[in-house]
Amino acid sequence: MSPESIHVDDQELRRFMKEGFIAMGVPAPDADICADVLIESDMRGIKSHGIGRFKMYIDRMKDGIISPVCRQTMVKETENTAVIDAGDSLGHLVATHAMQLAIDKAKEHNIGMVAVRNSTHFGICGYYPSMAVNNNMVGIAFSNARPSVAPTYGVEPVLGTNPISFGAPSDEVYPFLLDIATSTTQRGKIEVYAREGTPTPKGLTIDLAGNEPTDSKALLKMFVEGTASLLPLGGAGEELGGHKGYGLNVMVEILCAALSGGSFGKALSGMEGDRHIPHRLGHFFVAVNIESFVPIGIFRAITGSIMREIRSSTKAPGHDRIYLAGEKEFEMIERRRKEGVPVNKSMQDVMIELKKELKLGSFNFPFFADDTSTLQNSQRLSA
Amino acid sequence: MSPESIHVDDQELRRFMKEGFIAMGVPAPDADICADVLIESDMRGIKSHGIGRFKMYIDRMKDGIISPVCRQTMVKETENTAVIDAGDSLGHLVATHAMQLAIDKAKEHNIGMVAVRNSTHFGICGYYPSMAVNNNMVGIAFSNARPSVAPTYGVEPVLGTNPISFGAPSDEVYPFLLDIATSTTQRGKIEVYAREGTPTPKGLTIDLAGNEPTDSKALLKMFVEGTASLLPLGGAGEELGGHKGYGLNVMVEILCAALSGGSFGKALSGMEGDRHIPHRLGHFFVAVNIESFVPIGIFRAITGSIMREIRSSTKAPGHDRIYLAGEKEFEMIERRRKEGVPVNKSMQDVMIELKKELKLGSFNFPFFADDTSTLQNSQRLSA
Repeated sequence: MSPESIHVDDQELRRFMKEGFIAMGVPAPDADICADVLIESDMRGIKSHGIGRFKMYIDRMKDGIISPVCRQTMVKETENTAVIDAGDSLGHLVATHAMQLAIDKAKEHNIGMVAVRNSTHFGICGYYPSMAVNNNMVGIAFSNARPSVAPTYGVEPVLGTNPISFGAPSDEVYPFLLDIATSTTQRGKIEVYAREGTPTPKGLTIDLAGNEPTDSKALLKMFVEGTASLLPLGGAGEELGGHKGYGLNVMVEILCAALSGGSFGKALSGMEGDRHIPHRLGHFFVAVNIESFVPIGIFRAITGSIMREIRSSTKAPGHDRIYLAGEKEFEMIERRRKEGVPVNKSMQDVMIELKKELKLGSFNFPFFADDTSTLQNSQRLSA
Repeated sequence: MSPESIHVDDQELRRFMKEGFIAMGVPAPDADICADVLIESDMRGIKSHGIGRFKMYIDRMKDGIISPVCRQTMVKETENTAVIDAGDSLGHLVATHAMQLAIDKAKEHNIGMVAVRNSTHFGICGYYPSMAVNNNMVGIAFSNARPSVAPTYGVEPVLGTNPISFGAPSDEVYPFLLDIATSTTQRGKIEVYAREGTPTPKGLTIDLAGNEPTDSKALLKMFVEGTASLLPLGGAGEELGGHKGYGLNVMVEILCAALSGGSFGKALSGMEGDRHIPHRLGHFFVAVNIESFVPIGIFRAITGSIMREIRSSTKAPGHDRIYLAGEKEFEMIERRRKEGVPVNKSMQDVMIELKKELKLGSFNFPFFADDTSTLQNSQRLSA
């Protein structure tokens, strides 16, 4: 954490984002949902997907490639399935609607599956399975994403980071909650390496010559030029299982694009020549009513027992703890509730600028002390 | 391929396995199904899971830990879900029933999900999604497995190789068909390294000291002793994404054990002290009726277009081809239909022994030339 970071109250930060969405023309109830998805990311410690990405959504609404007003339409619906066209609406909103629809269907008909097309970036994939878990269900969410990942034996970014998230209730204090990209890593991690001045480990990226570059700053430039790609989980080639990560990545692409009748691959770049165009992402949501299979108590006990058996198994030397998916995030939420969410200096500047630009009201952030300070900060930013 | 390998007709090899199952007391229609799953593995070139594992099933039936007669019972059923207790029956058989049930439910109700508990090794995971694909559906299959994989920051084998298989129809000559363990590799691969006298690459296994051993022969001994484990996809630690493979592995464990009300982890070892006991595996099958989402033609075209975009993307230097999941297997099937299935010398000896022991009839294999040669081979084997 940067020494200039300031911890702010999560509810106040949530309110800031909500008011920002409203200022862009998003109806208040919809803004509330979007802010909830974003603040959940900050609470879980996934800083790349919360307030850190807020401005991106604002910019895309300004560019006209995300609609602030929900334009989703139902393409096809049965008692346990649906296909939604998001109409370039805010991804968080449509995804929340879609997972809620899957949950509602699963309540009545055991299972719900909802495919979404023509959507936009929906924040953390792991938000949506949590909705199912809170309803005593197993939840699964998938999304495709703009091209950044090369297939096995390829060097061109034709696949997205294509995340998978899976949640299951347990009898522990937290559910099992997996939220992963099917690439080895994502661009945000390389940005962290670049900021820290550390090399990117081999095995994460590949350039057009088939080498695995380690110069983090150079890599960021190469991503923009399209001359470097992220590698699928398992790395380059097949020796360490790269074809498996690549295969899972394409599985996600098929579920999100083919089942929704939507777009895929290079068409998700958000660019047409120099012009920004909608990203046209696809998502796929699954809700499974556990009681349709086994009593929820049995399910929770078995899932919890699996977690305990793993946690109590022999640790690798130098490690005193084995984590379960969702455990670090659960602990981070507890901590952030007490300590607040850290906002670093450059993010403070972005927020000061947004507050001014969107003419937002008062917020209890130290760096919003008064209009004078806001103005000073803002001037420094543009200096 | 060993120079002593002989190619045999796949239908004759299939008949050999079917007759072997029948000799063990498996009813003919059930033996037919089991032989079909096994020969499909040989046809796809997954030699570890076909005739190469046939004797294991025979031995387990002799040990009384697999029932030759199907004892599956329905635990719970709804219009689109089911839980089956396999009663230690042949895994191939129960899995085929379970996927067929999921398909039947999906025909009527868009989706089918079937969980199975107390099952046994079901052969290649990729057989079952193919059944769905042949019905214009998306098919997904999962299984847990005996413990052999260590979690991230752990060194004890508490997880199975826990495979995921996913199949989707396309407008290409073959479907997209992914069939992978969620570990970096499986024991069979280390056996190949040991036979070839080549070291095991770092990144595939871990010992109790947290090192990644490369002595392939030593590794095989360590697996038996429980002093080495396979690593999850992504390798040790989190740097290259090992926590992702580990998380996917546990996801499979939860789907297969918790949704079926079944066993998990160390309880799947098949051993109680020195005594063999049933493996009590769990499986989970999903069939998705594509027409419930989009017209099948649209789905096939999009899936095929995804495949073509990837295939035609820039290759890594030294590679002239990018494969899609299922492509190598499709080509292998074509080749084996023409050339037959290779059976190496040690497998020939095993088959000669089994033929004698199970008192099987005549088969058109060169190494089964007549009773005399069979006897000679068999004597040499035990010499």
